Amino acid sequence: MTRLDIETGFRELQLHICQALEAIDGTALFKEDPWTREEGGGGFTRTIGNGQVFEKGGVAFSAVHGPVSEAMKKQLNLEGETFFATGVSIVLHPKHPSHPIIHMNVRYFELDQGKTYWFGGGIDLTPHYVDFQLAKDFHQQLKDASDKYSTDFYPSFKEWADRYFYLPHREESRGVGGIFFDHLDEKCGLSKDELFSYCLDLGRLFPQAYKHQVDSISLKNPTEKEWEWQALRRGRYVEFNLLHDRGTKFGIYSGGRTESILMSMPPRANWEYNLTMAPGSEEENTVAFLKRTHDFIKQ
Amino acid sequence: MTRLDIETGFRELQLHICQALEAIDGTALFKEDPWTREEGGGGFTRTIGNGQVFEKGGVAFSAVHGPVSEAMKKQLNLEGETFFATGVSIVLHPKHPSHPIIHMNVRYFELDQGKTYWFGGGIDLTPHYVDFQLAKDFHQQLKDASDKYSTDFYPSFKEWADRYFYLPHREESRGVGGIFFDHLDEKCGLSKDELFSYCLDLGRLFPQAYKHQVDSISLKNPTEKEWEWQALRRGRYVEFNLLHDRGTKFGIYSGGRTESILMSMPPRANWEYNLTMAPGSEEENTVAFLKRTHDFIKQ
Repeated sequence: MTRLDIETGFRELQLHICQALEAIDGTALFKEDPWTREEGGGGFTRTIGNGQVFEKGGVAFSAVHGPVSEAMKKQLNLEGETFFATGVSIVLHPKHPSHPIIHMNVRYFELDQGKTYWFGGGIDLTPHYVDFQLAKDFHQQLKDASDKYSTDFYPSFKEWADRYFYLPHREESRGVGGIFFDHLDEKCGLSKDELFSYCLDLGRLFPQAYKHQVDSISLKNPTEKEWEWQALRRGRYVEFNLLHDRGTKFGIYSGGRTESILMSMPPRANWEYNLTMAPGSEEENTVAFLKRTHDFIKQ
Repeated sequence: MTRLDIETGFRELQLHICQALEAIDGTALFKEDPWTREEGGGGFTRTIGNGQVFEKGGVAFSAVHGPVSEAMKKQLNLEGETFFATGVSIVLHPKHPSHPIIHMNVRYFELDQGKTYWFGGGIDLTPHYVDFQLAKDFHQQLKDASDKYSTDFYPSFKEWADRYFYLPHREESRGVGGIFFDHLDEKCGLSKDELFSYCLDLGRLFPQAYKHQVDSISLKNPTEKEWEWQALRRGRYVEFNLLHDRGTKFGIYSGGRTESILMSMPPRANWEYNLTMAPGSEEENTVAFLKRTHDFIKQ
């Protein structure tokens, strides 16, 4: 399992996911934008837009390497001289307010030619309107994929996601959560091959999990209020990504490729001062739901 | 010049500015939202929306006090046990893409019952389309107001604004700049009374300066492209405020009042991956302008 194997595996994963997402959309196709990084490496950013299902989204692959900069030492607390990082990162903003926003990231990081390494990743779902059964299905899929490797993974990574995908200034979760993990290496009892295989499994699950959501939701023409609500929830998504998301902040402050980092930004986001929701409305129920953590799967 | 004098002066300034802005708008009126802070003090947030000129905006006043928290010590590098802070903070998003976004903040901060104190502030203009003459007029107004106190102020505060209102990840300014200053105290050669008077002068200039912009711009029905451009520039405004603005970041991370801090967020913001602009278009000219700093007033 060389770093080139991992890089190649992630690049294949990106192409597989894009193909599956194009099939879900039915009309839109990904455009590819290759880029290189002066200090070493580069990536392929693939974006989709104006589709039947997807209004704006991207599936980014990158494999970069070079000396560990001062910014990285300070912000990532790294002890090493050179690094290599590769991964796939996805955010999709659907057109229809009944469809959820979804995010995934799987990544591999090594220092000093592999002297130390770890995997990280996360998947989380952000419905504009929460449907408990669909949130449960999503968590069940993540649990099933994780249990094949370790039954410790889902419960601990689910809790990590609850803590991570959280907007403290709004006192609410970004969505119904999912899983999040970082610094995963052989100390967990699995080999490097197995950990990489886990990341690939999650990556392959991703389009299936989204397809299940889309297939289960029957669409009606959205009302004005529903469009408006979608735009406001997208505003919250922006707040999370720019104020709290560690990957975004690190990328921006350390001089990463802005367009690839901010491909997560939604179209048509909106903000309202002191937003009020009608008592008992679906909007109010959604926000009430996001203010608590939930056990989607009774252990 | 007690701290209550300053608090009262800023509160009056807020009301004066709101009145003047209502006159500029012609139809919309400010709504007032008073709030209190558990640890001490509070504020009056005044917001305006759906007007003839202003689509969304706010003029916030606050006067808060209490013990210096760990977050403040760390992020603001403060040496003291108790603090008092009062100020007026404004962001206005106009409806019409030909009108500029404008921001102002004036503030007073003291530690340990006034053992140390300073004033800070800033005004900057963010046109969706840059008009050089109007940018120049704006800078001339700021220079005239500043020269009454010190001819050093405008040149040094203008340069400070150029550095501060800048998006490094986009390699562009937020707009045509203005002035920015912080930690201004008697060491600059002016008395506390004079410095406060400077802040009030800037505050009173604010609606006049905006009125001059509005009066000088002849409006046409915006094209689709112009609406779209406005939404994209608003996206950049969001990026600045959430990624770089020190006040916003400090407020959010230290548990400030979210609605007042994020009243600066625009309505209908948009993002596009790898935005392209037609060569020679007004959009391209604007971005090219924002990529350089400018001497609006030949010294």
